[in-house]
Amino acid sequence: MATEASTDGTEAPDAYEELVERYRRIANVGNASGILSWDQQVMMPEGGTPARSQQLSALSAVHHDLLDDVEVGDLLDAAESAELDEEQAAVVREIRRSYEREVRVPTELVEEISATSSEALSAWEEARAADDFEAFEPYLEKLVDLKRQYAEHIDPDADPYEVLFQDYEPYLSLERTEEILDELKGVLVPMIEEIRESETPITTTAFEGTWDAEEQEELAREALTLVGYDWDRGRLDTSSHPFTSGTQFDARVTTRFDESDPLASLTSTIHEFGHANYQLGLPDEAYATPLGEARDLSVHESQSRLWENHVGRSKAFWELFLPTVTEQFPDAEGVTAEEAYESANQVYEDNLIRVEADELTYHLHIVIRFEIERALISGDLDVSDVPETWNDKYEEYLGIRPDTDADGCLQDIHWSHGNFGYFPTYSLGSVMAAQLYESAEEELGDLDERTRDGDFAELHEWLRENVHQYGKRYETGDLVREATGEEFTAEAFTDYVTEKYGDLYDLDSA
Amino acid sequence: MATEASTDGTEAPDAYEELVERYRRIANVGNASGILSWDQQVMMPEGGTPARSQQLSALSAVHHDLLDDVEVGDLLDAAESAELDEEQAAVVREIRRSYEREVRVPTELVEEISATSSEALSAWEEARAADDFEAFEPYLEKLVDLKRQYAEHIDPDADPYEVLFQDYEPYLSLERTEEILDELKGVLVPMIEEIRESETPITTTAFEGTWDAEEQEELAREALTLVGYDWDRGRLDTSSHPFTSGTQFDARVTTRFDESDPLASLTSTIHEFGHANYQLGLPDEAYATPLGEARDLSVHESQSRLWENHVGRSKAFWELFLPTVTEQFPDAEGVTAEEAYESANQVYEDNLIRVEADELTYHLHIVIRFEIERALISGDLDVSDVPETWNDKYEEYLGIRPDTDADGCLQDIHWSHGNFGYFPTYSLGSVMAAQLYESAEEELGDLDERTRDGDFAELHEWLRENVHQYGKRYETGDLVREATGEEFTAEAFTDYVTEKYGDLYDLDSA
Repeated sequence: MATEASTDGTEAPDAYEELVERYRRIANVGNASGILSWDQQVMMPEGGTPARSQQLSALSAVHHDLLDDVEVGDLLDAAESAELDEEQAAVVREIRRSYEREVRVPTELVEEISATSSEALSAWEEARAADDFEAFEPYLEKLVDLKRQYAEHIDPDADPYEVLFQDYEPYLSLERTEEILDELKGVLVPMIEEIRESETPITTTAFEGTWDAEEQEELAREALTLVGYDWDRGRLDTSSHPFTSGTQFDARVTTRFDESDPLASLTSTIHEFGHANYQLGLPDEAYATPLGEARDLSVHESQSRLWENHVGRSKAFWELFLPTVTEQFPDAEGVTAEEAYESANQVYEDNLIRVEADELTYHLHIVIRFEIERALISGDLDVSDVPETWNDKYEEYLGIRPDTDADGCLQDIHWSHGNFGYFPTYSLGSVMAAQLYESAEEELGDLDERTRDGDFAELHEWLRENVHQYGKRYETGDLVREATGEEFTAEAFTDYVTEKYGDLYDLDSA
Repeated sequence: MATEASTDGTEAPDAYEELVERYRRIANVGNASGILSWDQQVMMPEGGTPARSQQLSALSAVHHDLLDDVEVGDLLDAAESAELDEEQAAVVREIRRSYEREVRVPTELVEEISATSSEALSAWEEARAADDFEAFEPYLEKLVDLKRQYAEHIDPDADPYEVLFQDYEPYLSLERTEEILDELKGVLVPMIEEIRESETPITTTAFEGTWDAEEQEELAREALTLVGYDWDRGRLDTSSHPFTSGTQFDARVTTRFDESDPLASLTSTIHEFGHANYQLGLPDEAYATPLGEARDLSVHESQSRLWENHVGRSKAFWELFLPTVTEQFPDAEGVTAEEAYESANQVYEDNLIRVEADELTYHLHIVIRFEIERALISGDLDVSDVPETWNDKYEEYLGIRPDTDADGCLQDIHWSHGNFGYFPTYSLGSVMAAQLYESAEEELGDLDERTRDGDFAELHEWLRENVHQYGKRYETGDLVREATGEEFTAEAFTDYVTEKYGDLYDLDSA
């Protein structure tokens, strides 16, 4: 075993190969956990929970032990001292990053965070049901404290919020993220206000009535087939929250059905398709290595949002898809593509719930969470002040004020998992989606025309060539630059929404 | 960590606890593999195979590394030198057994067997399809040789076939097994001949026609509910071969449907229920320890055969279940319970296929395989002579001769996996089922009466009390003695078939 670093490089290729071999096992154990989680959410009978928790803990402990291993450290040192090509260097960079995050945090702290999250999750569920923030407060306080310690272990010199953020988005700076979110706020707050005051009526009720869940499932399958889901490497199921799970060989999506709102399931299915399609576009031969793994959360979200919004919420898509809808649901006969398009893009004036938000207000939900969690981690905001701060910000940015904490700061699961820094990746993903879609269109010409024809082959090809095929080879900013020729910026997104919603609501600012 | 053996026993309790803790992780990794295999056979899209193979290999390697660890050996030594109660001693005995089987066989040999089996499986599939034994011959030869080496590593002084057999049934001697199989042969060969010559016509066609697969699935669910399947800890799916997978918290069954034969799916579903019901009866608190794991294959098969044959093929069951059948399938209106019972128990005169055999001929299929694989491993039979020996034995014991090897010695998958010594456990299970059922009936009184009423509560309770609750606490023979007060014997089985088939076919010998 070549664990010694060498300066002449003769042993380094061996070290590199062995490092990758070890990483493969680690990645496969992680992927096995992914299957167990999918099963738990989709297939497992309710009584299976105690055994499943132990199985997942065992795999998580094995994953930790395989990575937090002095031999892995030696192999990393040896590989880093060698001459590596660009791809190999990227592989080593990514394994180093995982390794450092694993070894720097004491196992006891990881276990304490995990145990506290478990308790906090139950407490949050109860607190939300009872609209009782105070019942959740001590858990949130403890998690804020533990995650501050966690950040301190990883990098005592950095802004702890930035360290946490980098668990989800390792290669974008907090500064850039803040600039982008500020830009969104600057554009969206007045735009939403203008929409609120707009006199232009748009159709909001193209799909009223009751929509049978089984028929909706058929429709979701038709939609997935239409956008090019590879059924030989995927499947659609239902779960209480939609999600995607898998690898380039097997990427599965889930959805859920609201019988009063077929658009909810449809857009969420196309969203999950975007995630799955990214996984499926990763190179087969790099499976279970960093070059065969997705580039973190903002890029992942760019893929889901691109398909959900730029394709699935376009007028062209509704021109294409409406005949399929009316075939499945004869009651929809008479709805026009324009009406369907308007209904799918209505801006909600009084929606308090992030996951039910439209393309515009969504980002203000995110900005609010970002500002609050950042202040929590820095210590500028006390946990006990979260509800009031939350409500004030909703009033300021969205012109609405929650009546309850259940519909306010208790609505999301993320903080009860101790996930601080996750929310911004949702907005970064939307922004990146717009930038990528704009670039694809510059290169390929009018994409709406192709959508209208149900011809997504070139878009698939473009995304695969410019994003998917690289896995984690590039850091996020470099990946965007490689794909678009530009720095990562919110410009394409603000152009896109200004034009689309200016047109829809006949706004002066457009 | 208390890894040193101590003679005064002060450290032993720690060693025992730590040993069990380690075993739990190992068992949980094994159970995770079980979920991945279930998913592969039931849910996974076809394209997922390459990733799944790697995931399963990784878990298998982790499982090996966790068990084949010098610290586990030290903990075993320390625990064995201590004063342990009976249950603890059983736990240590079982972990020692797993440990020795793991450490004695060189990893390279395990890998070679695994790789050869993979190739042999494809070769067998092709050979069977082409009815070309010679194409499979070299693989079978290599596997026989490798498994001989394997047995030699585990115990160079023992009969290698016995060593292999003990992979599946660790605590019954080959001598006892041979006596039982000889007894079956002695009773069944003349009985089947007598049936062949019997003039008594029995109904064989109660369920002719076409039976919709979806309706059959409904019926299978009804049957499972009726016999007491715990749906909160289980589920029913379809797969190409029926199987059971899981633990006391989550034991799932699969079935398949033949639209020309609803009895096939029904009896196989009840068979799998018996397996699942055993898993579900293991104690919750002993999950992922030997006391919470099933006692190997013959006991497992006793549970499936008990429910399949003694319950599901009884006249009382058909009196209970027929109304459900006719509700689901109005075409079955007019079939009597007696006709259904006869059809479900007909003895096939010219069936060459083990998995389609009835309760009597089944065991001669097993005896033939047992005699051949034993002679193969001992070297008394050349691989090239298998087809002729096979056909001769079918002629001798069953009065039929296969026209093709596809319907002869190529029909089963087991040898292509290198599984020599597995087949006998099927017959041992049937024999044990009869002995257990007889004891239950002696204690509880007429069980047919309860079956007729759909009241299986006392039988469930008896099985749980006498078999399930113990996990691996007792060795197989001791478990049978605890449950029945007698040595493990074929007497109850031969009594059962003599009475049942004597009555059905009006035999003189009855």
